[in-house]
Amino acid sequence: MKPLGPIPAGYEAIDGVLAVAGRKVTDLVAEAGRTPLFVYSRDLLSARVAALRVAMPERLAIHYAVKANPYQPLLKHMLGQVDGFDIASGGELEIVRAVGIDPARVSFAGPGKRDAELEAAIAAGVTLNLESEGEASRALAIAERLGIAPRLAIRVNPDFDLKGSGMKMGGGAKPFGIDAERVPALARKLISAGADWRGFHIFAGSQALSADAIIETQGQTLALAARLAEESGAALPKCNLGGGFGIPYFPGDEPVDIVAVGAALAERFADLPEVLQDTAFCIELGRYLVGEAGVYLATVVDRKESHGETYLVTDGGLHHQLAASGNFGTVVRRNYPSAIATRFGEAVEEEASIVGCLCTPLDRLADKGGFPRADVGDIVAIFCAGAYGASASPAMFLGQGPAAEMLV
Amino acid sequence: MKPLGPIPAGYEAIDGVLAVAGRKVTDLVAEAGRTPLFVYSRDLLSARVAALRVAMPERLAIHYAVKANPYQPLLKHMLGQVDGFDIASGGELEIVRAVGIDPARVSFAGPGKRDAELEAAIAAGVTLNLESEGEASRALAIAERLGIAPRLAIRVNPDFDLKGSGMKMGGGAKPFGIDAERVPALARKLISAGADWRGFHIFAGSQALSADAIIETQGQTLALAARLAEESGAALPKCNLGGGFGIPYFPGDEPVDIVAVGAALAERFADLPEVLQDTAFCIELGRYLVGEAGVYLATVVDRKESHGETYLVTDGGLHHQLAASGNFGTVVRRNYPSAIATRFGEAVEEEASIVGCLCTPLDRLADKGGFPRADVGDIVAIFCAGAYGASASPAMFLGQGPAAEMLV
Repeated sequence: MKPLGPIPAGYEAIDGVLAVAGRKVTDLVAEAGRTPLFVYSRDLLSARVAALRVAMPERLAIHYAVKANPYQPLLKHMLGQVDGFDIASGGELEIVRAVGIDPARVSFAGPGKRDAELEAAIAAGVTLNLESEGEASRALAIAERLGIAPRLAIRVNPDFDLKGSGMKMGGGAKPFGIDAERVPALARKLISAGADWRGFHIFAGSQALSADAIIETQGQTLALAARLAEESGAALPKCNLGGGFGIPYFPGDEPVDIVAVGAALAERFADLPEVLQDTAFCIELGRYLVGEAGVYLATVVDRKESHGETYLVTDGGLHHQLAASGNFGTVVRRNYPSAIATRFGEAVEEEASIVGCLCTPLDRLADKGGFPRADVGDIVAIFCAGAYGASASPAMFLGQGPAAEMLV
Repeated sequence: MKPLGPIPAGYEAIDGVLAVAGRKVTDLVAEAGRTPLFVYSRDLLSARVAALRVAMPERLAIHYAVKANPYQPLLKHMLGQVDGFDIASGGELEIVRAVGIDPARVSFAGPGKRDAELEAAIAAGVTLNLESEGEASRALAIAERLGIAPRLAIRVNPDFDLKGSGMKMGGGAKPFGIDAERVPALARKLISAGADWRGFHIFAGSQALSADAIIETQGQTLALAARLAEESGAALPKCNLGGGFGIPYFPGDEPVDIVAVGAALAERFADLPEVLQDTAFCIELGRYLVGEAGVYLATVVDRKESHGETYLVTDGGLHHQLAASGNFGTVVRRNYPSAIATRFGEAVEEEASIVGCLCTPLDRLADKGGFPRADVGDIVAIFCAGAYGASASPAMFLGQGPAAEMLV
């Protein structure tokens, strides 16, 4: 048997059935009318932000990176939880406006912003995290044409990366941001052009579980921000420290020690250099805020044996859970946390692989895991499905179409 | 510089601009009104089928696997080219019916067929390639309720795989098909239950470039079909030999020698055992028929330098071209064939990476390739985009939405 990832805290069994927010998933599936179904828990979303607020210095604002999960009811819920939102496209700008998020609370990063996207963002009063000198020139020209002082920040490509991160966003040549040494000149240019100067966005990596690595990176980020602000010759109004907080997906993974991260950051905030004394700081988290608050449910439509191995074939698959199938930025396939939701907490009785309904060997959601015996009609659960699930998977592949989604 | 994959035959330059079907891509983009844009060529689609018809024995029918590209105008074109269609979901059944394909020419394979899908297929007269004994029982029960003799075939999990194939679909334990040794008993059961017996579907792998490997696998497939037909005690009306013909994606890849494959198959067809004398044979190809007939076009929205490296940031990306980004069933990332479409055929002037507009380091379409110097407004082309592109990528990721598609 191959190990499964750790099931996140906050999930329980009621009458042997997995429950989310106190409701059995069988009832939730009945309400949705079908599987595959993503269920997101308001309680778990709120609890995660609340725990962060306790651990982090009060001065640190918490932003939500919409790309992790743009489901509108979830965004509406987050509106009451976080201080700001980060978007990555004009499409996401439309989504946040549709749920009533004030564009003044929104920043927009992303390396390939088209002119139409820049214009929509500037007109709405969104802060642009500029990714290049070329983008800066286009933004200034559009703002001049519109007669608006644009809210502009610079995304910095730092000279360091976040150690142990699943995705490195800094350190060496990158398509993201502007190399640190070129930032002060651009900052001066933006300020002298009359932009509403919003400061720096410094994102060194994501999905790290080591508090030490995050603490080290935050220290480097603050030092870099101070140095670049000094060289820019202007006070730094805002500094987005990036994200990087990972969640445990795989066997052996441990949650980030946010108390340690918060304590270290509080110490640093107590000892900031002059140029950062009045800076507003934020972190921008996606996966960490929503990932563990979601579960993906699929129904077993076939149970079959082949050469002594057991397959639970479901009506779900990689078209909704690309990352769980090991096909999105993963080198070695490991198992996400998963369970038989209709026999939740029962003892392991057999080794089985949970596969999807797609006609490709890539479509495997759990490889040779240990489960209670499941049969046709049972519901399987794949955990850590709140981030980069529904919107980050090829829903139209093989004509399947999107899963249902529900916030409870 | 890292090498790029080989540009398929059939693409030319007109006035220094890549042309598809005799039309400059700049004109095609103007007609579509935007990039990103997939363009598929009728001529290249037809030429591919015609070449196959010449190379293969006349007795071999050619089926198209809709999953490779379900774009409806392309399917309509294929209707006049191929002998049958294979689908993999109820959604694909709706698509083939929408374009007027006779369900009698359609077969349906896939490990997770729901009851509603089985019912729709049986009612329409589609041939079901059964994936398990359980699915067979469900299909027979549904057919009895409908009062229809269902068209049933068995998908066989062969004891061998296709050597050198990109995706192994046979050999050992698999979620696909029924282990060979259990097939005769199920065939007898289906026949005695009054089903319209359609024979076997034996699919050992896909994306192989070696003619020798394909020839060997086809030999094993015919031998297995003969053995299982003998043991079933019934003549074999049909046998789907699977697919497996790959296309060159990467540096050093060579096209399949279809003349050699066809000659070997013709020899085998001339010497078939008694039980296969009257069998109708087909192959089922997706990628091979359509992959090289499509090109993906994106516009450069930024040109940037970072630590000495050049990035061409486009308005396209992995949300349309997941496989080209190396994130779909690939272990080692290699470059697809790509070019600056607006400087097609010009000499290499620099090393550059073509990246997408998504805010993730996964979004890279060409890594450190050699290209003529391109700037904002130039159009880049990623070739081999006709199969597993638009429908096999997460179009909604980061709020981007689908690309445009066009058949010319």
